[in-house]
Amino acid sequence: MKITSVNNSLIKEMTKLHQKKYRDRTGLFLVEGYHLYEEAKKHGLIDRVFTTDTSIAGDNVTYVSDHVLQKLANTKSPQGVVTICKMMTENPLTNRILICDHVQDPGNLGTLMRSALAFGFETIVLDHSVDTYNDKVLRSTQGALFQLNIINQDIETFMIENPSYYYVGTALSNHKMTDIEVKEKMAVIVGNEGSGIRESVLEKADINVTIPIQHIDSLNVGVAGSIIMHFVSDFA
Amino acid sequence: MKITSVNNSLIKEMTKLHQKKYRDRTGLFLVEGYHLYEEAKKHGLIDRVFTTDTSIAGDNVTYVSDHVLQKLANTKSPQGVVTICKMMTENPLTNRILICDHVQDPGNLGTLMRSALAFGFETIVLDHSVDTYNDKVLRSTQGALFQLNIINQDIETFMIENPSYYYVGTALSNHKMTDIEVKEKMAVIVGNEGSGIRESVLEKADINVTIPIQHIDSLNVGVAGSIIMHFVSDFA
Repeated sequence: MKITSVNNSLIKEMTKLHQKKYRDRTGLFLVEGYHLYEEAKKHGLIDRVFTTDTSIAGDNVTYVSDHVLQKLANTKSPQGVVTICKMMTENPLTNRILICDHVQDPGNLGTLMRSALAFGFETIVLDHSVDTYNDKVLRSTQGALFQLNIINQDIETFMIENPSYYYVGTALSNHKMTDIEVKEKMAVIVGNEGSGIRESVLEKADINVTIPIQHIDSLNVGVAGSIIMHFVSDFA
Repeated sequence: MKITSVNNSLIKEMTKLHQKKYRDRTGLFLVEGYHLYEEAKKHGLIDRVFTTDTSIAGDNVTYVSDHVLQKLANTKSPQGVVTICKMMTENPLTNRILICDHVQDPGNLGTLMRSALAFGFETIVLDHSVDTYNDKVLRSTQGALFQLNIINQDIETFMIENPSYYYVGTALSNHKMTDIEVKEKMAVIVGNEGSGIRESVLEKADINVTIPIQHIDSLNVGVAGSIIMHFVSDFA
């Protein structure tokens, strides 16, 4: 059995997963290419697979024509496989947390997620940030998503509910990174590309630090967050 | 005088600047939006301006229709102004240099350029990397380009001709960043997104360092380069 029509009802249904509301409704999301297929498989998160590649086999595999695969994918070259994945459930908080306040650019969130995982920040709290299951975020995370604990919550509520964490914000201040007290439980907060972290959140942080720079107003948020996470990672 | 036809010969000529070969031939490049217009103006690099905005005035300003501006621009919303800029000439080497070996992604190069400027690496040497005047690079540098000294040269030749620099490569090695000797003249080398720095370049470096990470194979090159540049910046 091979689906060759883009009007097939299953294909039409799956294509809707490019939209956030359908992802939220179904608890499913869609990734493209072999690398993300392998990662999803490794973490037991595959719901079903659409592919043009007969070397991929299994109960949940559906073969499709090039044309249909193209329709399912968001990129021009979906590399032979589109995987429908189950969203991860929330897990207990890890000792290192990254908090994103209104981070809007998918590439920036993807970079932050990849760095977070690399530096042992295995929980990410998102507040009004771009959706982690957005195609562009998924492409730039390179599979890091499957190993992260993602929580969507209001930051101030999160901070009140989790007072045992030492919260490090990034803002123009008199504090340098070396003023950060490295503790067992730490959360690094990054903010919006244009306006930074909201004032009400900065006020609740234990410390707000500045990375000294010259010539320009600000670093890219992915870079700034990564530098701070690297600094407070407990194994580096 | 207002140009309203996309078939106008000047518009057709300027549109070609989206291609590298025309940029190289003419020594001109094109930027979109008010922020980059202001930056180009500040650094005296404006050749001419195309705009729909009559509040912008001057000898080198040409008014165009929305449709023509759209044609000149690469983005859907060019924000009212497209500026034709003169390429910068090469300047003497600064004490901090960033070297890019086959960096291919425009977003990564843009991030690296922005961080380089922020951390005082005012000279960038590019070898087989994406063109600095590429639209996507320009958008992600946020104007950093106008303040950087850009040199296109073979890296190994550059290293031989400039032996007074201490070259720091990034590679899997036993060296950590704290092993780096911070000297007056330093060059940080970053490599290709997939394959890293070429072996022949690594061999010529004074030290090759690893940033300790877990869970994943590598950091984003923009992040890794920024972390090392931050570490060796002479004012942080």
